[in-house]
Amino acid sequence: MAPRVTPRSAASAGLGGEQVEGIRAVEALLAAGRRRVRSVWLAPGHDDRGRLDGVERLAVSNGVRVRHVDRGRLMAEARTDAPQGVLARAEPVAAADYDALLAERGAFLVALDGVTDPGNLGAILRVAGAAGATGVVIPRHRAAPLTPAAVKAAAGAVEHVPVAVVGGIPAALERAARGEVWTVGLAAEGSTSVFDLEVADRPVMLVLGAEGRGLARLTRDRCDLLAAIPMAGAIDSLNVATAAAVACFEVVRRRGAATAAG
Amino acid sequence: MAPRVTPRSAASAGLGGEQVEGIRAVEALLAAGRRRVRSVWLAPGHDDRGRLDGVERLAVSNGVRVRHVDRGRLMAEARTDAPQGVLARAEPVAAADYDALLAERGAFLVALDGVTDPGNLGAILRVAGAAGATGVVIPRHRAAPLTPAAVKAAAGAVEHVPVAVVGGIPAALERAARGEVWTVGLAAEGSTSVFDLEVADRPVMLVLGAEGRGLARLTRDRCDLLAAIPMAGAIDSLNVATAAAVACFEVVRRRGAATAAG
Repeated sequence: MAPRVTPRSAASAGLGGEQVEGIRAVEALLAAGRRRVRSVWLAPGHDDRGRLDGVERLAVSNGVRVRHVDRGRLMAEARTDAPQGVLARAEPVAAADYDALLAERGAFLVALDGVTDPGNLGAILRVAGAAGATGVVIPRHRAAPLTPAAVKAAAGAVEHVPVAVVGGIPAALERAARGEVWTVGLAAEGSTSVFDLEVADRPVMLVLGAEGRGLARLTRDRCDLLAAIPMAGAIDSLNVATAAAVACFEVVRRRGAATAAG
Repeated sequence: MAPRVTPRSAASAGLGGEQVEGIRAVEALLAAGRRRVRSVWLAPGHDDRGRLDGVERLAVSNGVRVRHVDRGRLMAEARTDAPQGVLARAEPVAAADYDALLAERGAFLVALDGVTDPGNLGAILRVAGAAGATGVVIPRHRAAPLTPAAVKAAAGAVEHVPVAVVGGIPAALERAARGEVWTVGLAAEGSTSVFDLEVADRPVMLVLGAEGRGLARLTRDRCDLLAAIPMAGAIDSLNVATAAAVACFEVVRRRGAATAAG
């Protein structure tokens, strides 16, 4: 697991994440125990009673106040479509220090250039958390990127994956170069296949652009290399979180092979 | 591109797909020209004018009736949250014949065992279409699986990826074995890593279960092998469409390598 990076300042970074909805996300919030939880609201239905009972036990054993409410009340408080009978309120997620992330041995970072959809941001955090990425890097263009929708889609990853906020991705890429972290932009026009990514087992940062528009020109110019996911069928693009998954797990494959060989 | 498989009977299969929303999905519907389009409704906003103009030109050149409406009218007709200013009405998607899919040279199928969420179904179709899968196989447990949400998430893949409907996945796996198609269930408890999938360049069917519950026991028992995506971080599961992407693109990688070597 990635070492915990000391937050610079939670208040100044303003990641958000105070409202946590959905079973996986609340389970991870309580189990990780990394931020103070103010309350857990439960409104069990028929299907999920067993799992919500587990959430309640976890909350009680952590000394968190539990409120039982009916479904209507929970839905009135919820800010996602399907909170699965549970929401929690917690202190905000603390931002990680970007330079500390760059300095980590085995750094494996995922930088997002213009990915603003909360569902995609959350899905990428989940992918990063499953692939063992040591951090996610986002530009400071929004007040609180970890909206309830992003936190729910992350399925607990906001409790584990350090998130650093930078002024802009192009400047962050320059700092990565000084830190000897390889920067790999994912782009359809990339001349390298992601399946030939020799640098995957060195300190590396994958850079993903907005779906549709792709990487900004300045971002593209500053990446050490541009890699493409080979499209083998009639559909010529992937959702950004899907592309992140293919590239992140290619890093997992390469690093696993390197470990097995070494 | 996958050869077109003759549909057995569109009416009996009832795939749905008559309402198509979102720019990519409508573009693909018109460009593919594989099913009759009754009408296209357009309500351009500020951001997407250029791309919607392209959709209109495509519709007109195909002799499809175009209706210009305001955003409110479009939203009243739409059945997804964000139709991006366009929807189309078309004849249903015709189902493919399962045995014909099994018989294809280079068969690369994706079977879904209990994946009912329309967003996940659509996302998996998109992944299958990008990875060059020759078909997707779903059980007949719902009237019209290609809901507007699934069609939009598929981003055009319903026009290209043959979809076969079977009575049940376990029986379909038996037919696959008779057809000499290797069946690979994705399961956390799988003893093989997806990165060691020797059978990827033979006729193969990846089998995916519902998120959370995973593969049904009978399905798991009938797969030739069970493969796991190695989880390398604190998060121990992937969304089913994300898992599909990692596994499908591992097939792309293996088959590309086989082609390059052969």
